[in-house]
Amino acid sequence: MIKKINIGLLGCGTVGTGVAKILIENKKLIASRVGAKLILKRIADIDIKKDRGIVFDDGLFTKDAREIVSDPEIDIIVEMIGGKGIAKELILKAIENGKQVVTANKALIADQGNFLIKKAEAKGVDLAFEASVGGCMPIVKTIRESLVGDKIKSMTGILNGTCNYILTKIGDDGSTFKEALKQAQSKGFAEADPTLDIEGYDTSHKLAIISSLAYGMEINLDDIYTEGISRISSIDIECAKEFNFKIKLLAISKNRGSTVEARVHPAMISFDNLVSSVNGSMNAVEIIGDAVGSMVLYGHGAGMMPTASAVVSDIVDIARNLLFNITGRIPILSYQSDKMSNISVLPIDEIHTYYYFRFSVLDRAGVLAKIAGILGAYSISLKYVTQKGLQSNGSITIVMFTHLAKEADVKKALSEISFLDVVTDSPVLIRIEDDLEEEKEEE
Amino acid sequence: MIKKINIGLLGCGTVGTGVAKILIENKKLIASRVGAKLILKRIADIDIKKDRGIVFDDGLFTKDAREIVSDPEIDIIVEMIGGKGIAKELILKAIENGKQVVTANKALIADQGNFLIKKAEAKGVDLAFEASVGGCMPIVKTIRESLVGDKIKSMTGILNGTCNYILTKIGDDGSTFKEALKQAQSKGFAEADPTLDIEGYDTSHKLAIISSLAYGMEINLDDIYTEGISRISSIDIECAKEFNFKIKLLAISKNRGSTVEARVHPAMISFDNLVSSVNGSMNAVEIIGDAVGSMVLYGHGAGMMPTASAVVSDIVDIARNLLFNITGRIPILSYQSDKMSNISVLPIDEIHTYYYFRFSVLDRAGVLAKIAGILGAYSISLKYVTQKGLQSNGSITIVMFTHLAKEADVKKALSEISFLDVVTDSPVLIRIEDDLEEEKEEE
Repeated sequence: MIKKINIGLLGCGTVGTGVAKILIENKKLIASRVGAKLILKRIADIDIKKDRGIVFDDGLFTKDAREIVSDPEIDIIVEMIGGKGIAKELILKAIENGKQVVTANKALIADQGNFLIKKAEAKGVDLAFEASVGGCMPIVKTIRESLVGDKIKSMTGILNGTCNYILTKIGDDGSTFKEALKQAQSKGFAEADPTLDIEGYDTSHKLAIISSLAYGMEINLDDIYTEGISRISSIDIECAKEFNFKIKLLAISKNRGSTVEARVHPAMISFDNLVSSVNGSMNAVEIIGDAVGSMVLYGHGAGMMPTASAVVSDIVDIARNLLFNITGRIPILSYQSDKMSNISVLPIDEIHTYYYFRFSVLDRAGVLAKIAGILGAYSISLKYVTQKGLQSNGSITIVMFTHLAKEADVKKALSEISFLDVVTDSPVLIRIEDDLEEEKEEE
Repeated sequence: MIKKINIGLLGCGTVGTGVAKILIENKKLIASRVGAKLILKRIADIDIKKDRGIVFDDGLFTKDAREIVSDPEIDIIVEMIGGKGIAKELILKAIENGKQVVTANKALIADQGNFLIKKAEAKGVDLAFEASVGGCMPIVKTIRESLVGDKIKSMTGILNGTCNYILTKIGDDGSTFKEALKQAQSKGFAEADPTLDIEGYDTSHKLAIISSLAYGMEINLDDIYTEGISRISSIDIECAKEFNFKIKLLAISKNRGSTVEARVHPAMISFDNLVSSVNGSMNAVEIIGDAVGSMVLYGHGAGMMPTASAVVSDIVDIARNLLFNITGRIPILSYQSDKMSNISVLPIDEIHTYYYFRFSVLDRAGVLAKIAGILGAYSISLKYVTQKGLQSNGSITIVMFTHLAKEADVKKALSEISFLDVVTDSPVLIRIEDDLEEEKEEE
């Protein structure tokens, strides 16, 4: 008799429908790989009559999600509702009932993951969330399984398709941020309220999750420095290009031994780094391990079917364990729970990195000397300085690239500079992500 | 009491030493993730006295590999000897003795994999070979696990670092093939006898393995069309560049329903495809699935530590199963053995793709008409034609890009053209890999 695993789907919106589509339309294919039938037994959604373009068996739908999490026939609960309210309540109930749980809910995992995971571990069930980071890119699996022998040194990624689409658009045709955002919204790459994406919070959620997995620390969302892309202009993208850099919204995390850097902000990244070639709504992450060296994963970071594909991979992973009556084969946060460390996130003021500055100043003798003098006083040394032509307001533009400098020093220096009477606009600061340079300076 | 898994390493050359290094130096890290000790219990090598830069426990080494595969205390055998002779014999013996096996031996798996896997399945042990394809890139895991819900449509990859280094070098500085090969050899990116790499056979081995995993067919090395890079010149790389293409040695496999395309040859690939940006000795593979869309894995395709990292991921995967007393959690070739299909590889003459031709011809009226006439007679229609300046021998160069054409027709046409008395050198043919174009033409 062929074995069966019963699945209950909570929420049949975009991604939920994608999951149903794969489970139904690729049913035979999946069975031929898994050696068991994965049966989509129940679906809960407020809209049970909508045409979702799939032929469902009769009686699958209910409006009552609680009915499904309490159904003794259901083995795996797939939470596709989103948000931190009812989704959390249902996941907790499912765990209590001894069910395995799969979710793509990055906000919930980033915010409440530590609590939910402890509950799951105490009950001896699995909680999987591959689709919560990077859509279809198998980041969670790669960190937890493929790099299990590696000390992970850093992760640098583009983890938000909306921001990458907008930055690509500004770079391609000189759109303003507002124009590019509007275009992203009309193409369906940005929500009506895009705050979560463009202010970098969505990226922070994802970085908090993968940093935890990589370094064996609890998920720590609050300490991640987060800066969005709304102040990026085509001028800076052009300046970056002249020096062989692209500007991307990067999620950056670095293992600094007893601390970790974890930050999200626009950054310049060298053309030589494959991540700089990732355009439009695509996502990518570079992971550097002590054995593996540099590795990049690239794919659709969102979207109905790519995200659904990742959800199904989680369902199958759990199903494969259930077929052998096992759970907890791999610790949910990658490390055994008694081996998690108390690693703290380095405050942004403490980091050392490279900087790009752009100043608008009056075209007068001695201006450059004044600015350079202040930077020098804060031990910020310069690699390149260029002066650009006149702006419409009569100011000129000075662009600078620094050697390694400390964020706190940079902030103080820029604050002083902004008070100079020859400075006509707020200075622009963009951090530069350049591992190769860093290694050279460390030598 | 903490659980222990005992590992026996056969062969302590470059990659074997890397595996030992990770198992010893990252011992605590691995234990904190796995929840068990992975103990490198025995090592077999002909040179037991060599300084490998690692502090080994006493008594680890033996010259007799047979002793290890018969040691009742060993749980997992890691075969790092290479070749198809003694390595095969030892793997068979290990399987007979009920041991789990990990190998990075692509030639052996490509050539004898079907046989060895049947033996392992019959005995109920696992045989893992992540490191046999693409070094540290988790291709095997991604296909078998992350894309378990996807119908895989195609895979396009750079799977040989030697060839990619040589082609990058020719493109960067106009070296001849011979010069670039010499450079690769002096830098350690090519073997003294580079045939296996530069003639494409190493890439074919890898393509045979991943095609089997993706489509559920037996490993079929013999039917893969294989063409190396020794005839690629900087002229063609320059011409490609003008049309926004790079030339790479590609492993290409496409799911054509009842058949599969599986071929290895130099090909032009668009700048828009991330794989075209993969330079030097790095590897990458684009996998397209029906749900996941396009996904790319990128990393070191070879080298001591990256390959060792992949070997360790296999060891841990098996160890995690052994801790629960299970084997066969995932079918070795991705599909249940009774669900493997008899899919055949489409002969190269039957494929339809795009072509680049370069002709050296006398500078006479009517030459282009003659060539175009022959191509037209074989239903080969042209997208672009350009004529280049005089060569040193007085010939001129004609470059052509075709629409979709059938390989058999192209061969016949080029053969006829080569006999024209105005043609002064053998025509050059390079296939073009362009999925976007293909989709457009199919519409």
